[in-house]
Amino acid sequence: MTNRIKTKSVTLLLVLMTLFVSACTSTSTGQNASPLMIAEQGSFAVGGAVIRNEGEFDPVALTAAGQTLHGDHASVFYQIPVNQRQYPLVMWHGFGQFSKTWESTPDGREGYQNIFLRKGYGVYLIDQPRRGNAGKGTQPGTYAPVPDEQKWFNVFRVGMWPDYFPNVQFPTDTASLDQYFRQMTPDIGPIDINVNVDAVDALFDRIGEGVLVTHSHSGGMGWEAGMQNPNIKAIVSYEPGSNFVFPEGEAPAPKQSSAGELSALEVPLSEFQKLTQIPIIIYYGDNIPEQPSDYPGADGWRVRLAMAQEWADTINRYGGDATVVHLPDIGIYGNTHFPFSDLNNLEIAELMSDWLKEKGLD
Amino acid sequence: MTNRIKTKSVTLLLVLMTLFVSACTSTSTGQNASPLMIAEQGSFAVGGAVIRNEGEFDPVALTAAGQTLHGDHASVFYQIPVNQRQYPLVMWHGFGQFSKTWESTPDGREGYQNIFLRKGYGVYLIDQPRRGNAGKGTQPGTYAPVPDEQKWFNVFRVGMWPDYFPNVQFPTDTASLDQYFRQMTPDIGPIDINVNVDAVDALFDRIGEGVLVTHSHSGGMGWEAGMQNPNIKAIVSYEPGSNFVFPEGEAPAPKQSSAGELSALEVPLSEFQKLTQIPIIIYYGDNIPEQPSDYPGADGWRVRLAMAQEWADTINRYGGDATVVHLPDIGIYGNTHFPFSDLNNLEIAELMSDWLKEKGLD
Repeated sequence: MTNRIKTKSVTLLLVLMTLFVSACTSTSTGQNASPLMIAEQGSFAVGGAVIRNEGEFDPVALTAAGQTLHGDHASVFYQIPVNQRQYPLVMWHGFGQFSKTWESTPDGREGYQNIFLRKGYGVYLIDQPRRGNAGKGTQPGTYAPVPDEQKWFNVFRVGMWPDYFPNVQFPTDTASLDQYFRQMTPDIGPIDINVNVDAVDALFDRIGEGVLVTHSHSGGMGWEAGMQNPNIKAIVSYEPGSNFVFPEGEAPAPKQSSAGELSALEVPLSEFQKLTQIPIIIYYGDNIPEQPSDYPGADGWRVRLAMAQEWADTINRYGGDATVVHLPDIGIYGNTHFPFSDLNNLEIAELMSDWLKEKGLD
Repeated sequence: MTNRIKTKSVTLLLVLMTLFVSACTSTSTGQNASPLMIAEQGSFAVGGAVIRNEGEFDPVALTAAGQTLHGDHASVFYQIPVNQRQYPLVMWHGFGQFSKTWESTPDGREGYQNIFLRKGYGVYLIDQPRRGNAGKGTQPGTYAPVPDEQKWFNVFRVGMWPDYFPNVQFPTDTASLDQYFRQMTPDIGPIDINVNVDAVDALFDRIGEGVLVTHSHSGGMGWEAGMQNPNIKAIVSYEPGSNFVFPEGEAPAPKQSSAGELSALEVPLSEFQKLTQIPIIIYYGDNIPEQPSDYPGADGWRVRLAMAQEWADTINRYGGDATVVHLPDIGIYGNTHFPFSDLNNLEIAELMSDWLKEKGLD
């Protein structure tokens, strides 16, 4: 009798555990999460230029004479949830990346696209000009398939190849790493910061007011866009890497690391001051060395973090509202260069969400 | 008094007209359509290869030694609606195109992605290897920005540049044409049919049974995929352009047009017979010349349509179920090379939807 009761209890416990594990699994893949209610979704090209060839088009010979080429636009996929919040989020990938940055994570969990749709934000994902689906540019380009993924493993602070950082918020299975390496895509033609910023400027002209979310290389371009288009009501920047803008005469000396020299840019004070009119938050992850290191992958981030802090101080000295959050300083450890797709990305999204609320941007 | 009544009537008429126009506008942009209920959405890479460099990775010098490159995968964005139907639809773009083919139309209406999600189908959109968001290949590539859009305007049978076909189902405003031209994107590296088919094969291995929807250049590759993966339960092909496969010894003579020679491929009978095991439907649009024409843009389609008809006859002679629908023959006029995004794409989708139902594939 006692044995049967014990068996039943164990069975019940197993059933409950199975249900619990199953619920967790379902949530993590998004399989059984509540449906996304999308009021509208679609895609378009925005910005760009047109090349026109001299001469008259020949419909028989089909030579290039008299023909056009439309290129240098950004490609945008957007989704607007039912009952969307005040401002949509425009998400802009970093170097070597494309819109995928914000979609499914390497291990198939939901990324920022889905997470913020669920929070009620409209989401616009950009492929910047000459990258990914916006591959049609006005300049020639070449692609050489040079193996470089172990470099990026280190630069993106997943670990020190072949070792993962012990506390890393990144899945350590082979399939996830395969997906991670495949989420890079080459430039087709030269990167042109003005072309990129102009396309994002045109996007905000088209969609109206919103919040710009940048990552890495788009961080610096994001400051330019913020100075160029007043529809950008705030900027959230994950691990901006370069092109911090200071008022003329106030740029700090270049910073040295084993990754090279990091210089700041100078812009007229009147331009710089535009960035003091909007709230800005910057996040950096973990495993950034505090002292100079011979390993350039990690060491570059030491000076970028330092530059970001000086930059925010300058913004705030001019009456702005910029915050730098070094995640380990608030007790969040193990984040890579991609906090928004790391294993703890729901927690990272909550930080951003709370900040948007605090600034009245939700 | 009569004047006041007249004024009121005119006002009422104006109000009704405004409401009518507003309703039409809202529907055409999808703004006020019922929400899409998405149970799950995300993206992943599938298929592909890995290059590994000899040597040992050097975390200081970061040279290419000991490093890898993952490339030649397809990039896939998928959405599964609540209460999805039996088989999802896998949509594969044509030459020079990418997943955009199936998203918003050039004038911002809903494309096949949304239309079939609303009909309850899971939708997978492919960027084939070395195209769009799947730009990371294992082979070098070059891109030359050669103006060629007027050629495509003719080849895609929008009209005879600068004139639109009088009955064309294509918006004739400038903004739509701008979007249309920007929805092409170059190859990064050579097109490799085997690489492409292998990636789609790997996709069907991953997702299980489904229906393959092809367009133009992916038509021919779709026959290969259909012979390679039994999870492909049917094929819907819009304007397949080349690589029709016949049993060994049964290929028709090459067909001549001012666009060049169109040859058929031969495969072992046992391979060919796999295509007789699944229902197949092929659609061609309007403005395909019946007699040889000096204009290669249009003339190429004359022989492709003829080849498709001979091909379907051969499939059916071997007990298969292939249908070629030349849309004007069933009273649907003005379609371009992109019937699924033309002005009448809801009608075109209904044809496909009815066919899926008829074949028990819904």
